[in-house]
Amino acid sequence: MTKPLKGLKVLDLTRVLSGPFCTMLLADMGAEVIKIERPGIGDDSRHFGPFKEQESGYYMLFNRGKKSITLNLKDNQGKEIFKNMVKKCDVVVENFKPGVMEKLGLNYEVLSEINPQIVYCSISGFGNTSSFKKRPAYDLVAQAIGGMMSITGYPDKPPVKVGSSLADMSSGLFAAYGIALAVLNREKTGKGQSVDISMIDSIFTLLESNVVRYSIGEEVPTRIGNRHPISAPFDTFLAKDGYIVIAIANDALFAKFAETLGQPELSQNKKFNTDFNRLQNQAELKQIIESWLQDRTVKEASELLLDSGIPCAPIYDIKQTCESKHIQEREMMVELNHPKAGKVRVPGNPVKLSDTPASIKEPSPSLGEHNLEVLTELVGLSEGDIKELIHRGVIDKENS
Amino acid sequence: MTKPLKGLKVLDLTRVLSGPFCTMLLADMGAEVIKIERPGIGDDSRHFGPFKEQESGYYMLFNRGKKSITLNLKDNQGKEIFKNMVKKCDVVVENFKPGVMEKLGLNYEVLSEINPQIVYCSISGFGNTSSFKKRPAYDLVAQAIGGMMSITGYPDKPPVKVGSSLADMSSGLFAAYGIALAVLNREKTGKGQSVDISMIDSIFTLLESNVVRYSIGEEVPTRIGNRHPISAPFDTFLAKDGYIVIAIANDALFAKFAETLGQPELSQNKKFNTDFNRLQNQAELKQIIESWLQDRTVKEASELLLDSGIPCAPIYDIKQTCESKHIQEREMMVELNHPKAGKVRVPGNPVKLSDTPASIKEPSPSLGEHNLEVLTELVGLSEGDIKELIHRGVIDKENS
Repeated sequence: MTKPLKGLKVLDLTRVLSGPFCTMLLADMGAEVIKIERPGIGDDSRHFGPFKEQESGYYMLFNRGKKSITLNLKDNQGKEIFKNMVKKCDVVVENFKPGVMEKLGLNYEVLSEINPQIVYCSISGFGNTSSFKKRPAYDLVAQAIGGMMSITGYPDKPPVKVGSSLADMSSGLFAAYGIALAVLNREKTGKGQSVDISMIDSIFTLLESNVVRYSIGEEVPTRIGNRHPISAPFDTFLAKDGYIVIAIANDALFAKFAETLGQPELSQNKKFNTDFNRLQNQAELKQIIESWLQDRTVKEASELLLDSGIPCAPIYDIKQTCESKHIQEREMMVELNHPKAGKVRVPGNPVKLSDTPASIKEPSPSLGEHNLEVLTELVGLSEGDIKELIHRGVIDKENS
Repeated sequence: MTKPLKGLKVLDLTRVLSGPFCTMLLADMGAEVIKIERPGIGDDSRHFGPFKEQESGYYMLFNRGKKSITLNLKDNQGKEIFKNMVKKCDVVVENFKPGVMEKLGLNYEVLSEINPQIVYCSISGFGNTSSFKKRPAYDLVAQAIGGMMSITGYPDKPPVKVGSSLADMSSGLFAAYGIALAVLNREKTGKGQSVDISMIDSIFTLLESNVVRYSIGEEVPTRIGNRHPISAPFDTFLAKDGYIVIAIANDALFAKFAETLGQPELSQNKKFNTDFNRLQNQAELKQIIESWLQDRTVKEASELLLDSGIPCAPIYDIKQTCESKHIQEREMMVELNHPKAGKVRVPGNPVKLSDTPASIKEPSPSLGEHNLEVLTELVGLSEGDIKELIHRGVIDKENS
């Protein structure tokens, strides 16, 4: 079995999270991703924990299956080598602040002159066309001004950020989709183009119907905890040993639920007989449910409820999720053999293709591991040229 | 300018959110999306608010630029019409519970016999290969057992769900990426395949490094509010009139910040002189920052801080986000002219392609609006056939 992006050559200038996640999605699907790192230091994330045998687990996750070369892009010879690679590759991805590639003389306009087929993707906080593009933007900033924090959390508590770096992750994913679209278009036209992804635009898109509730419904949605805006009971409930989520959005299901609670009369009660009425009286309903739950563990309650077909679930911590049967069965945790760190487990890929599945077998590269291979085979340099480059500090010795 | 998916014909059986968002991403990029809805009722989301002139804003957002036909897939003639369309189309997308398409006799195995080039994408809670695939799974369930709720919120407060339906949205986006990959692969091999997307796998992927902090770092990450796991000050802070986020992850930036606060000595203080020390003493540091903020509005503070290059931002509510200069400049709010509701504003598309941009001009269709067009032009039925179908209730009259 081959992979859908086999043959696609990607020059990867990205660092840390959004960009590396994007190119990880491409590498998992068979693209040859050549990560270009700073000599001596490499991607900052090589120095982020957790560590195993001094190797960064953070770097391992997002850079599996890629090649690494070191190249000083501020050096004229480094620039020439990069331009030479652009001639022979399909995609360039970077997540610098807007303006950095221009300052290096390596922006899309320059690179597309060298290779009109090149697909050039940039990921940044505000994107390339916003007045605010020079502003520093971390994930937290994007979640704040992208509106997501204002709708996450409890009404009587401060706004809450999503626990993971959602602006980075979603912009990386939109970038991978954009690159696939540009490559598809190139199949037809023979011409590349640029793909400009903003973390704030990405978060904004994930707000889903909250935007039209404002722009069409003339309401400003705010925080409602874990409740559903129009259905009840659809929330987190406290059981004997922790929280359970229960999600009921129609009357038939509520009738079954009331029976399971041993209180079938609830579904006849005028306070609770329709979804609308249940929503109006959700606080009282929550008390009734939590008093039923107080003698039952999450496990006991969810078994009973699932037997009756009621959508519910425990709230798993990260360990419980990682070790869950579902995650195992779906190959969402895979084992890699890292030359220094040994066997490590990292997340799999959620895009399950029947004929050309992702296969995650190669570990992340050491810094400059592929200098010799890439510079001789792709760029066509001689060993003498490479010695000279190492001497001048334009690249590193391999495995330095 | 053309669009990257021009010519791609998509049969869209999806309802409500995850699937419609996926096919919206395809339609924005030029695919011809033919939405197949239940006669008389249509997609449930046609009945979700907000409403304008009795038209659903929810439906308008996720179904812009699509065609709508009504077709009863339980009827034998309805099935035959669908199979006939499969012969002439490229992609089928559905978000039924696993098993529904099999029961209808319209699963991938059947459809790929009819058209081996077909790309078949299913989106469901657990995916097609999980033991739990028959379990009901709403977004809240996926956020609970996908681990996201356990890391969102404050340590001394219950777990919190992400304010929007992130499991639906992310699975729709992974599905769009998977479809693009399968179409790309088909360009090379001439053969379609199936794409199987799970809401839980999608949420799990968005946990990013939290997974390796457990699987490699042997820690179970939990809730830390809006703080950063390894840097400080990187959090939400209370100002005179609301909250501001400030994100400082290195010593140089902290020195500038301390100067801006008029307390340059802070960066020399042993409690705060390194990122590590600031993290250990973040509670004390937060008090110092909030006492500086108590006399300043969010606007005043952010202007001062941004002038010094300190990453910070107000926390916008949905209205402030929608009306922000950034969102306007990036065309992330676009106006559609709906035949019944009139002018409405909906979110734009975050994938900014330079040569083949998304253009969002067509509104969402009325139920069965394209029955005649699709059934005559694509399926080749006569007007007599169609009258017969209407009579038997297999399809609706147009614009019923």
